[in-house]
Amino acid sequence: MEKFSRNQRISAITKILIDNPNCSINLSTFTELFNAAKSTISEDIVIVRDSLERLNYGKIETISGAAGGVKFICDVSNSKIQAFVTNLCLILREKERIIPGNFLYMTDIMSDPKIIHDAGLILASKFNHKDLDYVVTVETKGIPLAYEVAKLLGVQLVVIRRENKVTEGPTVTINYVSGSGKRIQSMSLSRMCMKKGSKCIFIDDLIKAGGTALGIIDLLKEFDSELLGTGVLVDNTENPEKLVQEYYSIVQFKGISEDGLPIIEPSV
Amino acid sequence: MEKFSRNQRISAITKILIDNPNCSINLSTFTELFNAAKSTISEDIVIVRDSLERLNYGKIETISGAAGGVKFICDVSNSKIQAFVTNLCLILREKERIIPGNFLYMTDIMSDPKIIHDAGLILASKFNHKDLDYVVTVETKGIPLAYEVAKLLGVQLVVIRRENKVTEGPTVTINYVSGSGKRIQSMSLSRMCMKKGSKCIFIDDLIKAGGTALGIIDLLKEFDSELLGTGVLVDNTENPEKLVQEYYSIVQFKGISEDGLPIIEPSV
Repeated sequence: MEKFSRNQRISAITKILIDNPNCSINLSTFTELFNAAKSTISEDIVIVRDSLERLNYGKIETISGAAGGVKFICDVSNSKIQAFVTNLCLILREKERIIPGNFLYMTDIMSDPKIIHDAGLILASKFNHKDLDYVVTVETKGIPLAYEVAKLLGVQLVVIRRENKVTEGPTVTINYVSGSGKRIQSMSLSRMCMKKGSKCIFIDDLIKAGGTALGIIDLLKEFDSELLGTGVLVDNTENPEKLVQEYYSIVQFKGISEDGLPIIEPSV
Repeated sequence: MEKFSRNQRISAITKILIDNPNCSINLSTFTELFNAAKSTISEDIVIVRDSLERLNYGKIETISGAAGGVKFICDVSNSKIQAFVTNLCLILREKERIIPGNFLYMTDIMSDPKIIHDAGLILASKFNHKDLDYVVTVETKGIPLAYEVAKLLGVQLVVIRRENKVTEGPTVTINYVSGSGKRIQSMSLSRMCMKKGSKCIFIDDLIKAGGTALGIIDLLKEFDSELLGTGVLVDNTENPEKLVQEYYSIVQFKGISEDGLPIIEPSV
């Protein structure tokens, strides 16, 4: 077999690391794939690390010891965050987004892989110093964003259901009061979905009063698990009274202007 | 600013291309980022292309002309497909997966970013020769997989809801007969979610009789749109009569053995 050149190895190592964020990859994976010495691979990795760090694309950490290896930790530059937020504000300010009931239509945004990838990167980079087991979300609209964050953090996604399903096995259901609508709602989670004593973050499309986040804290208690943080794409600040204090959002929806346009401002 | 070395450029170009599958990236993006000549960047791209193709990680296509650029098309080797399918069969054969009603528990699988990324890659590589507008799915379990396929194909995801929601604007709802349960069910899609005359594929966790796929064909007709293909992780072959003929699956669930274990076989 013709040997891989350094350039070729660097391209392939970059791909493998980026496809497996926050997962330790043993150097032997690379030495076997490229039939190259460990010292050669180590030099390759230094080059990849320098390039990615220089462009704020992320960090490469080395874990020493027998089970050692390297892993890619995602990151994003402030200038990229600013560009993303500016563009998202423009998109969300479109007049047609206000639908009857004065809701902000954002289903298309939450299903756009380009937007969700970048939003996931911004949220994941806020939580990637925490030692996490799960990213949790409540069905349906936040699932792609929560999946993207879970993938970037190298942990499992957990989707809380609105109702008990026959395909989920034994479930735990709690009732909670929605903070804005003052309605009683339910959420269910399969016993098989989460190990006891887990650490979680909650990712969703929108936070209004924060009733859902409080409900999740209650539900996680049933699994002896705790919520370490909350991240959303949009913070609805029309109702300034929040039931939760600490959360991270990317943009704010402040209501509707006299011209009938959504008032959207950066949170960051 | 210190110039980027060829090695550094190759790592960064690989990252940018892989983060934007099936999206054309103009060479000027790279010449500006690295302050390098177009001819230099073209040479870099040839190296990245050769490395990715040699490992069956995907292809890089060059689009010539004024709006020209390069794009990454995902691919996966047969050996990687085989390794993935073998491992997935082992996981799905666990006894605890059979839950009351003889359902196969696979919620954890459908929320595992590592499994979903690889499954998405396998399904996307089956459809990446088609000219598509949307990947559609029905809430809830298939959303991460459908999102991953949409991202890899560079198109928008569309999530069909089980019921009409106030945050979706005007919706079209159809009723359909589930092929297995002989029940009447509904599915709804927001008018704002899909342009008329679109080409779609349907991605889901499981296909049983195919009633949902037939329902989607009907719903898409309301948008003057058509279904070009269907891909699922698991084909439930307990009921061999299918309402749809053409679909692609990764593994088959053939029922429960005398020992009470799920019978799972590769589809490919």
